[in-house]
Amino acid sequence: MSTGTDQVEHKLRTLGLELPASSPSRANFLPYKRSGNLLFLAGQICEWNGVPQYFGPVREGYDLAEAKKAAEMCALNLLFNIRAATGSLDRVAGVVRLGAFISAPAGFPDGPKIADGASELFIHLYGEAGRHARTAVCVSSLPANGLVEIDAIVELGALSKPR
Amino acid sequence: MSTGTDQVEHKLRTLGLELPASSPSRANFLPYKRSGNLLFLAGQICEWNGVPQYFGPVREGYDLAEAKKAAEMCALNLLFNIRAATGSLDRVAGVVRLGAFISAPAGFPDGPKIADGASELFIHLYGEAGRHARTAVCVSSLPANGLVEIDAIVELGALSKPR
Amino acid sequence: MSTGTDQVEHKLRTLGLELPASSPSRANFLPYKRSGNLLFLAGQICEWNGVPQYFGPVREGYDLAEAKKAAEMCALNLLFNIRAATGSLDRVAGVVRLGAFISAPAGFPDGPKIADGASELFIHLYGEAGRHARTAVCVSSLPANGLVEIDAIVELGALSKPR
Repeated sequence: MSTGTDQVEHKLRTLGLELPASSPSRANFLPYKRSGNLLFLAGQICEWNGVPQYFGPVREGYDLAEAKKAAEMCALNLLFNIRAATGSLDRVAGVVRLGAFISAPAGFPDGPKIADGASELFIHLYGEAGRHARTAVCVSSLPANGLVEIDAIVELGALSKPR
Repeated sequence: MSTGTDQVEHKLRTLGLELPASSPSRANFLPYKRSGNLLFLAGQICEWNGVPQYFGPVREGYDLAEAKKAAEMCALNLLFNIRAATGSLDRVAGVVRLGAFISAPAGFPDGPKIADGASELFIHLYGEAGRHARTAVCVSSLPANGLVEIDAIVELGALSKPR
Repeated sequence: MSTGTDQVEHKLRTLGLELPASSPSRANFLPYKRSGNLLFLAGQICEWNGVPQYFGPVREGYDLAEAKKAAEMCALNLLFNIRAATGSLDRVAGVVRLGAFISAPAGFPDGPKIADGASELFIHLYGEAGRHARTAVCVSSLPANGLVEIDAIVELGALSKPR
């Protein structure tokens, strides 16, 4: 589906990251739906090729760097689905909004620090256009007992270069 | 408000379902607000004519089929409000996104299975256009201690047939 | 940024309210992002000039009037950011949707009553145009252990009067 020459995918590789080979929905919903130039992306948990990798709830003495990797993995699944929807990561004109859900108990104040793992990937890849509004809350549990779930609304534009 | 000849309402009846007679807001918000061709629907709990029918949190050994009926009941309230907003269930061009909230404790992995009770009704009624992006998370409590709350964004189109 | 002659800011003052002097993001996200005529506002907790003022979770025997003030404070931060995005509170053509998150334990039924503290401010300020769809859920914890977090989608229009 990718041409291998996409600018954003190239940048992803220079960060030492890659997209998963698949990102199956675990129930009866679509990974994305488009309305006009907005692409609404379903919530993605921290899984790799459909296998959950990080589990909640956040525990006492958790590793923030690892939890941010969980959020980043959600973002990689979102990016997989952006490419599936449009043919190229280069079609993103802007990331509008992320919704971030962290599985955590009462009294956990640092959901935003974890959610930054996803936000920072979008910013690395898209620069100012990757900056977005965001809502982060901690919830009692997530699908498959994942640690993090993130959804997104992105605005699509024309490709910025010939493919 | 319905003409009785609407195609989607007819399909609803063939599924053995009907819309509630009312769907009152329990606080100071609107059940829907339109912006352009998008209709933003407020979260609806599993109530019938304003009386909650299924209560959370999900308990050990819960009945999945019943919990899916709770989610379906949320969808019936959403459909009530789509008709209230537009005059007919036939005005839906596509279901864009559902937000599904299940009242459940830590460690409950199956929110998506419950949320399917709403998603499948939209798919039964609208076919491919009824398929949608979705985010499902489990939360500590919901209005009136409901078991499920679901909100939606739908895209409106022209009526597909003369009324 | 404000001219001091804005109609909605004047109305805010007649209610005995004012906007905070600042509303800093506590992590790597924007307080708002615009797409077309929709302004997507990041979730704001009940803080004043960046200092949290009300803390969750809701406790037995809590004061509803105070909790509604917490929700209203979230709304004041949203309004601060609407003005920051557009130059004037008078640019709001309509409030489309609020997402309200209350930090509360299992079994708490009254999230909507608390969320009304934000909804009623928008209605006081904007009248019918301030009425909106809303989803209110109770979650295990919020950023900085805040009591309430609220995000919004508002529709922008032209200024309704010369500035």
